[in-house]
Amino acid sequence: MRVTFCCTDTQAEPWLAGLLAALPEATVSAWMPGDPPADYAVVWAPPQRFIDEQPHLRALFNLGAGVDALLRLRLPPGLRIVRLDDAGMAVQMAEYVCHAVIRYFREFDVYEALQRERRWAARKPRRRADFTVGLLGLGVLGTRVAQALLAFEFPVIGYSRTPKTLPGVVNYHGSDGLSQLLGCSRVLVNLLPLTPQTRGVLNRDTLGRLPAGAYLINVARGAHLIEEDLLALLDSGHLAGATLDVFATEPLPAQHPFWLHPRITLTPHTAARTLRDESIAQIASKIRAIERGEPVRGMVDPLRGY
Amino acid sequence: MRVTFCCTDTQAEPWLAGLLAALPEATVSAWMPGDPPADYAVVWAPPQRFIDEQPHLRALFNLGAGVDALLRLRLPPGLRIVRLDDAGMAVQMAEYVCHAVIRYFREFDVYEALQRERRWAARKPRRRADFTVGLLGLGVLGTRVAQALLAFEFPVIGYSRTPKTLPGVVNYHGSDGLSQLLGCSRVLVNLLPLTPQTRGVLNRDTLGRLPAGAYLINVARGAHLIEEDLLALLDSGHLAGATLDVFATEPLPAQHPFWLHPRITLTPHTAARTLRDESIAQIASKIRAIERGEPVRGMVDPLRGY
Repeated sequence: MRVTFCCTDTQAEPWLAGLLAALPEATVSAWMPGDPPADYAVVWAPPQRFIDEQPHLRALFNLGAGVDALLRLRLPPGLRIVRLDDAGMAVQMAEYVCHAVIRYFREFDVYEALQRERRWAARKPRRRADFTVGLLGLGVLGTRVAQALLAFEFPVIGYSRTPKTLPGVVNYHGSDGLSQLLGCSRVLVNLLPLTPQTRGVLNRDTLGRLPAGAYLINVARGAHLIEEDLLALLDSGHLAGATLDVFATEPLPAQHPFWLHPRITLTPHTAARTLRDESIAQIASKIRAIERGEPVRGMVDPLRGY
Repeated sequence: MRVTFCCTDTQAEPWLAGLLAALPEATVSAWMPGDPPADYAVVWAPPQRFIDEQPHLRALFNLGAGVDALLRLRLPPGLRIVRLDDAGMAVQMAEYVCHAVIRYFREFDVYEALQRERRWAARKPRRRADFTVGLLGLGVLGTRVAQALLAFEFPVIGYSRTPKTLPGVVNYHGSDGLSQLLGCSRVLVNLLPLTPQTRGVLNRDTLGRLPAGAYLINVARGAHLIEEDLLALLDSGHLAGATLDVFATEPLPAQHPFWLHPRITLTPHTAARTLRDESIAQIASKIRAIERGEPVRGMVDPLRGY
């Protein structure tokens, strides 16, 4: 069995060693143009030529939760694309979102500013009932985020393309559902996959439907957000703040207005990192399942886009 | 039935209105010296004269979780002191502590500094296994904090005076237990009651037993901490940071070195606020239980100190 590894911006050696340890029967190597075709591929944003040189893959594993970069390539029909399901990313996403929501709800950002002025001043407590969190996307990550927020007793509502049942979460779906969710989300959290339908979904119209004083947390893809629309709504005072992990251009250019905006908190696409050990264990276990002819979770539907 | 209200630093009117609405059969008033003795008292840090003028209280309710201010007074033997059990404080404490722990674990404080420099730089992820959280105190608040941390998959250990069983939490007790817990706590969270035994428990010796690079979160009482010992351990680099909600002197004096210390985050005793509606509902329900001769939760043992 031949396993090839083709991940942009990733140091290959530790992944190769880990994959080999987990699959000692396999030949594992970092892809070079002209290599013999492989049975399995582990990729992140591979070039078109890589795909063109793999005529008989049994499965292609995408590191990370989003497959939008992969689906922009010309792919052979019937290619089996498998996403990692969780592999330690969901708990990181729950941490990131809960930290940001609690920070806004408890005004810890305001307290830090008061500390710098050496001012001892308690803020009037906000009411939890006024802090409904609306989640866009209720997949593996959205489900875990919802559960974490419910443990802190926040009202949680969620939007999904198709109806979903999650205990404690009011579900909205379809385009009417999106409008309804926006109207009552004090905090909007974006966890959608990036598809032609969701590109630019966070814009002046949708963000303008949020109640005055709302917050945005974008942890999905930069292309979901029309960045100038966010700036306009922050500067008009309609939105109170935004926490952003992803951007239209990454790394974020040095002159971008987000960097020093007083109402924007940003991180360099680190909300949920791909963890090597967890990912390798999951890939190896899925390869073994495919070899035994068993179904695996995380199969991507290229038409649906996730 | 006569209910008297004597709470320092609290606007009395909304409490009186709420208590009267919940207990319409009662006479409810803000205490004035010379008032006739009451059957029930709702207090926060009352003066000695208040206690001296209450010869036949059926119960005294303490707003807030800590009764240390009350127990410094001369109290008549047999006085029934009742703490609020939770009343919305536990979830606030869980929020506060999880926010601070996640902030340290994920280095969000570092990312905010990088943002101010417009630097796009991912930090090497920390390992959750290296981030054991040690809780001092496993009462109502400590239990809720432990459960919230476990949901984020942090290793959680806890110290209590007497042995306690909490699912997922390794329990230490006794003085040997305290030493053991300190030795493996990357984050130490103090939720102890303030008693003669716990006064000054956070000092150069105990904090020095934490592993290098540890963090302190103090959400109990300022008198638990020897403030100059914390400063020495932060400045020597042994401790990496501290999040403090309580102080030896409150409000914290303007010239106190904590205000502008780069490794200290502080809030003005707001980690868990006493919520009026929840507290009034709980007090009314406990008064009715006492009138029916039933036991109530939250009875304080003055000798134990909590």
